[in-house]
Parts: sequence; structure tokens; C-alpha cells
Amino acid sequence: MARRGEEGLLRQALGEPVAGNGLLHRRAFLRGGIAFTGGMAALAAGGGGAVAAAVGQSDPIGLDSPPTMTTPGRSFTPYGVPAAAESDVVRTFNVNPIAPGTGTSRTPLHLLNGTITPNGLHFERHHNGVPDIDPATHELIIHGLVDRPLVFTVDALMRYPMESHIRFIECAGNSGAAAGTMPPQNTVQGIHGLLSCAEWTGIPLNVLLDEAGVQAGASWILAEGADAAGMSRSIPLDKAMGDTILALYQNGERIRPEQGYPMRLVVPGFQGNINVKWLRRIKVTDGPTHTRDETSRYSELMPDGTARQFWLEFGPKSVIVQPSFGVNLTGPGYYEISGLAWSGAGRIARVEVSADGGMSWTDAALSEPVQSKALTRFRLPWRWDGQPVVLMSRAVDEKGQVQPTHEAWKAQFAPGQAFMYNGIQNWAIDANGEVSNV
Amino acid sequence: MARRGEEGLLRQALGEPVAGNGLLHRRAFLRGGIAFTGGMAALAAGGGGAVAAAVGQSDPIGLDSPPTMTTPGRSFTPYGVPAAAESDVVRTFNVNPIAPGTGTSRTPLHLLNGTITPNGLHFERHHNGVPDIDPATHELIIHGLVDRPLVFTVDALMRYPMESHIRFIECAGNSGAAAGTMPPQNTVQGIHGLLSCAEWTGIPLNVLLDEAGVQAGASWILAEGADAAGMSRSIPLDKAMGDTILALYQNGERIRPEQGYPMRLVVPGFQGNINVKWLRRIKVTDGPTHTRDETSRYSELMPDGTARQFWLEFGPKSVIVQPSFGVNLTGPGYYEISGLAWSGAGRIARVEVSADGGMSWTDAALSEPVQSKALTRFRLPWRWDGQPVVLMSRAVDEKGQVQPTHEAWKAQFAPGQAFMYNGIQNWAIDANGEVSNV
Repeated sequence: MARRGEEGLLRQALGEPVAGNGLLHRRAFLRGGIAFTGGMAALAAGGGGAVAAAVGQSDPIGLDSPPTMTTPGRSFTPYGVPAAAESDVVRTFNVNPIAPGTGTSRTPLHLLNGTITPNGLHFERHHNGVPDIDPATHELIIHGLVDRPLVFTVDALMRYPMESHIRFIECAGNSGAAAGTMPPQNTVQGIHGLLSCAEWTGIPLNVLLDEAGVQAGASWILAEGADAAGMSRSIPLDKAMGDTILALYQNGERIRPEQGYPMRLVVPGFQGNINVKWLRRIKVTDGPTHTRDETSRYSELMPDGTARQFWLEFGPKSVIVQPSFGVNLTGPGYYEISGLAWSGAGRIARVEVSADGGMSWTDAALSEPVQSKALTRFRLPWRWDGQPVVLMSRAVDEKGQVQPTHEAWKAQFAPGQAFMYNGIQNWAIDANGEVSNV
Repeated sequence: MARRGEEGLLRQALGEPVAGNGLLHRRAFLRGGIAFTGGMAALAAGGGGAVAAAVGQSDPIGLDSPPTMTTPGRSFTPYGVPAAAESDVVRTFNVNPIAPGTGTSRTPLHLLNGTITPNGLHFERHHNGVPDIDPATHELIIHGLVDRPLVFTVDALMRYPMESHIRFIECAGNSGAAAGTMPPQNTVQGIHGLLSCAEWTGIPLNVLLDEAGVQAGASWILAEGADAAGMSRSIPLDKAMGDTILALYQNGERIRPEQGYPMRLVVPGFQGNINVKWLRRIKVTDGPTHTRDETSRYSELMPDGTARQFWLEFGPKSVIVQPSFGVNLTGPGYYEISGLAWSGAGRIARVEVSADGGMSWTDAALSEPVQSKALTRFRLPWRWDGQPVVLMSRAVDEKGQVQPTHEAWKAQFAPGQAFMYNGIQNWAIDANGEVSNV
């Protein structure tokens, strides 16, 4: 029996490469694909080191029962937790030591797969900690340029019409370390981990704004949280009346405290902190309010010394997470290159991958259904020959926007500006399979 | 300022009803819908009891800061948990007292929204408890009618090509209480809670079977778990080679222990325990194995006294969860009727709702994108006039199969047979807004 160890796994190719350094066609493994039938026999023939043992001998292939089959297991739990062996799959912190509610925690994207972020691992960005809000007393106020100022209890909101959408949320400061002059030697979690994706369910904000009656002359709203930072941002009225929802549920259950319990805005594709958590107040206004949170931060210094404000929508972006820094290769042979792509402008249209530092590219497969303003998983089969390579991915969104190189991105701004970074991420792999950021 | 309390909320109609007892058109709230503009003014006019207060007075609408805005909040956590106020949103158990690893736990579907089940709340069905499996030593064996028997470590499997799909899993015994002669007075969790939905990521099983080389004459596989029940089921080979995956991730993170860590089968649309957890062995066979788990249970007694075996695929099914038993109405006026629909045969094509016990029906809106063999959320606006009503929902799948009435379902089987129940769920609402099962 062939034992499928890491060493000998899938050493042979699945059809001919379609781009430099062993990138295979994205459909090489697809059911019914032309490369499939011929490919698998080659894979098996090039497989593990052990020789196949005859079935029927005394447990040559481990047919004897493992201990777990002879000892009753554990009972039931009201609310489950991950396996103890996965205790390294946690958020990591960057916290102000004299203000422990100020900072960030990051999603371990390099250890996840698929597109959904489990609620316990959704990234956090707090400006003065997580408030404990009593849903029985919390109220949402809508006032300003409206015909009928309104106050909503949580119970009242639960009767309103709702929608569900899978959306990414990303901090405007995500990947900021990659905007510097030296590529940070850190994991995807450490560099790009202020990014998560969930199914959000809530009330279309336009239903509530229409009930209040938006007056002529209104053009923006102010959204304010009930946290100790009074975190507040301005949002263009057309976005607030568009795909913005007042979210009450995250991946099926009520929103977690650190995500805004009992309610937050979800403003798809816009800077993370515009998705205001612990929402308590919306004021309809005739222009942006220029709050502290959009003047002291989350605006971009330009080459001429001015600051660009209200550049709210993320451009197209992608990152390969397998392999990546800390997720090394264990020897030549077959691998699946896998990563995430997203855009604030809508759906991802394509993701191209290069294994030769950008000289040749081929399209990755996108996990269907590709959803608007959601993380999209891309995958590409690859046969690594053991030689040093540089892997890159490049996202294109449905509006035709193309993810820029690091250099092209940098040229837009003053030195040191690091918000809204979406440059291409390059991973170098050496002959030992170790991955570094270049 | 109008205060939006439960009492007076949305008392007026959104356009004219389209079916009996106040069911409104599913697009009544849609952006740009014809009923929308006219409807909202009426809603607001019929709103809360409090008179609107002038904005600008000393906090007439609660603009003063709540205490959470003046006290720093809590710091960061590696792995988050739900809000303390949501402590009733948990799985409930039905466990054998002398064998505490044998039984079920149920998803609180009546307290959730959207379509995803958070991992901590996915239902459980264990036959002898949850094993603690070491991923470093666990192996998957493929043997039987194959050219090359194979053994896979978890590390080896992590290099294989993967797919991600949102799929429901339902226990064959789910809703069994509703198959009796008396409608059970219990929540959706208590009646239908052996049902959950997640994004599963793993390896197409046909990739692994093709690598082993399925021999001529093979027609089924046996799948066996590493738990203390040795839970094992037979699966037709065409299903195993079809959309079945060997799942390693659930909603992004590695599968939880109670869901089969480190790996389980996901066999979309088929009976729950065929999605074998803690998978350790697949044997390719020339027919079903007739294991204990498919002869003593999970087969159906027919009117002529024979047992039907291997009726594996769920029919179309739906249930209204808001309102439902325990989720009562708080007074006449506007509500959103919301529920879940699913089918083992593919996508849900439509869900019809009746508020007059089945005399008239109208289509609910389906939350897009509708995905194959996944929970689909349906929603319908409704104006309740305070009179007694009976709510029903009826699912139709893309194959044209229609969810049967309770009576039509019962007529197929011997008395007492309760597996694979998918009859229509009727909820009666009395003049006090209390919901009962009829």
C-alpha cells in the first residue's frame, strides 16, 4: 500500500504547465476535465515511498481499531469550541499598553481556508475598547435633516425587513506594513490580517432613512458608535441609501460584542471603521462632518502635501496565503496555490498567478458563487520543481480595475502614507521551500 | 420624535395584500419597488405612540452620551464568544443518561437569522461520544476494490486540491416528532433543530478515489468513523464520485471536534450520518454493506411491513421560524415572516407562504444567491390584523418536487415511521399573538 507522506506526494505533473515554473491549468483537477483522467494515474505512480501492501494481511494498512474506537467519547456541549490541537489558530494583538482597549487584533488568514471567517476570529479594531451594551436599553437615533426624527429600540428593529449578504470588512490600515520600503517578514495574518468576511443580516438602512424622511439638501450622514471613543464617520447619502445595512446578525447569530453588539453598520466595500460598531446615532447632514476619526486618521497624505479625504472604497486586492510566510513547502511536487481576492467595487472578475516573478501569468480558478464585495477564494494547481521561485497574484474586479504593483501604488502618495494599500504581494520561495516577502 | 416601540410599529400596510390575512408582495420593501415610496409615509404616520419632539431641545431624543461612552471598554481576545445577553442562544440536548455520548444536540434555529450556522451551534448527533483525535497520527485508509490501496496522513491531505461549498447537513431523524399524530408543542429548535448549514472546504473525494484506482465492478463505498461507535454507512459510488468532498474546514477554520475533527465526509443532500465524522476508512465495494447503522436505524418501515433502505436524499422542506412556537407576536401590525427552505435534490426554486391555512398562497423572496443543497432564507412582509391565523410554507425545488402536506407524507409509510420527514409545518397564531403547532 502506498503511504501518502508529504515527501513523495503528487510528484508528477497534471498535464503540461501553462505558465512559468510549473503553474498548471486551473481546471487540471476538475471533474471531467481533459487533463484529469490521464493526470491521476501519473500522480499515483509518482506517489509515496512505501510499496503497496496486499489488502487482507494482518493490518498492513492500519485496519486495526485506533484507541478512540474502543473508549466512549465526550458528551455534548451547548456552544462548541475548536479542537485543542488548533490552539494556534487565534487572533494576534497589537495593543496600546497604556490604553488596552486601543489597537487591533488580526485574523489568522494563513491558517484558514474557504471564504467565511468564523465569528470568534473576525479581526478587531477598537479605539477605546469593547463596550458592554444592554440590548434592552440601547437605542438607535435618526435625526438631522429628516422629516421625523426617530428612536428605535432593538426589539422594534427585530420586526423590520431584513437582508443577508456575505461581505468582507477590511481596516483602512490593513497591509500598511507592506506600504513601506522594506517588505515585512511576517505572516499573512501579521501583514494582511485586518480583513475578515461574514454573512451579515440586517435591515436595509434606506428603509429606516425613508421612514424618517430624508429632506431635500441632505447629502451625507454621520454615524456614531456608543463606545468610549464615540467613534464616528461620515458616509455619502447615496451609499447609505444603497447597499448599506444595519446589521444585527453575523454568520447566523447575533453580532458579537467586539463586532458591535447589538448592532453595527455594514457599508460594503468601504473602509472598515465606516462600518460603525455599537451604532447609536445617525444624523442626516448636508456634507461630511469632518470628525476626529476621519481627519486625524484614515485620510491619505499626497505628494503635494495635501491630504485626500473620503477615499472610502477599496480597490482590487489579492494575496496568496498557501504558500506564504510561515506556510512553507515541504519538498518538490504538487501543491495547491490558494489565496483570497476582493474589491470594494463589486465582484472579482479574475485572479492571475505568476510563479516567475511576473514574467508569465495564468488564471486561477475562483470559488463559485463569486459574490459582490466578499472574499473570493482562488486556487491553482502547481508542480514545484524545487528551484527558487517568486509567486505573485493580481486581482481584477468587475469594473476592470487591476491590482497595482507595489511601486505603482507608492507613486500615488507622499512617502509614509500607508492607508488603503492594495499593491501586489510577492512571496519568494527558496530551494528549501522557505517563504519570504520580497 | 416618534419612538418606535413594539406596540405601534409599522401599523399600516405596504400596498395591498396579495394573499389572505395580510400577506404583502415579497417586493414591497425592495429598493425602487413601486409599493415602497408610498408605503413608507403610511408606515411612519401609523408609527409609535410618542409624539415627535423637536430636535435641538435638551436631549429630547437621547443625544446625551450613555455610560459606555464615558468608560473605556474591554480589551482584545484571541477567540471571541457571543454576548452575555445571548446566553440562551445555545444547543439543547437529548442525551441517553446511561451513555452520555449517545444522543443529539439541536441548533437554535428560531433565534438565528441568515443562512450560515456558526460553528459553535452546529447540531450534533453522536452514537458513542466525541473522540479526541490527534491529527498528527490520524490516517485515512482507502482500500477494497481499488488498484492501489492508500493511506493518507492529515499533512499529506493538506496539499491536495480543495473546493468550498455552502451545504446543509440534516439528521435523518430531524422533525421526527412532527411525523406523529399530535403536533408537538415545541420550538423550531426542538422539532427541526437537527439541521445546520456551513461553508465546507475539502478535497473532492473523486480525486482520492481516482488516485487509488476504482476497479470495474465497484458500485458502492463503505465509510467508517474513528469514534467508539465505529459509525459506518454505505454510499453509492456515483455519489461518492460526484459532489462528495472530504471536508477539513468548516466556515473557514478546521472542523470542530464534534463535527468530525480532523476530517469528515460532506455528502450534499444525503442523510446526516452519511456525512461520516472522524473518517478513518473508505472501502470500495460491489454493493451496500448493510451496517448496523443502516439496518437498525435510518431505514423506513413501509405500510406492507417491509423496510425501505438507502432512501438517502432529502426531499424539499421548509419551515417558518419567525414567527414560530416561542417566537410570538407582540401586537397587530407589520412583521417579516422569515424561514428556511432546503432540498437534497439541489436548489430551492420557490417558497410559497399562506396565512389562511392553505386557502391562498404567495411567493416569498429568496435570499440570493440561492445555492444548491444549502439552507435558503425566505422572507415575506406581512401585516397582521390581530385575528387568529394559520401560517404555512411550502417549498419547491429545482427538480419540481413539492413539499407534501403532513397527511400526504404520512400516507407513504407504516404508522410510527418518522425518518426523513418533510411535511408542511403549520403554525397557528391566536388573538394574543401566541403561536402553537397545529
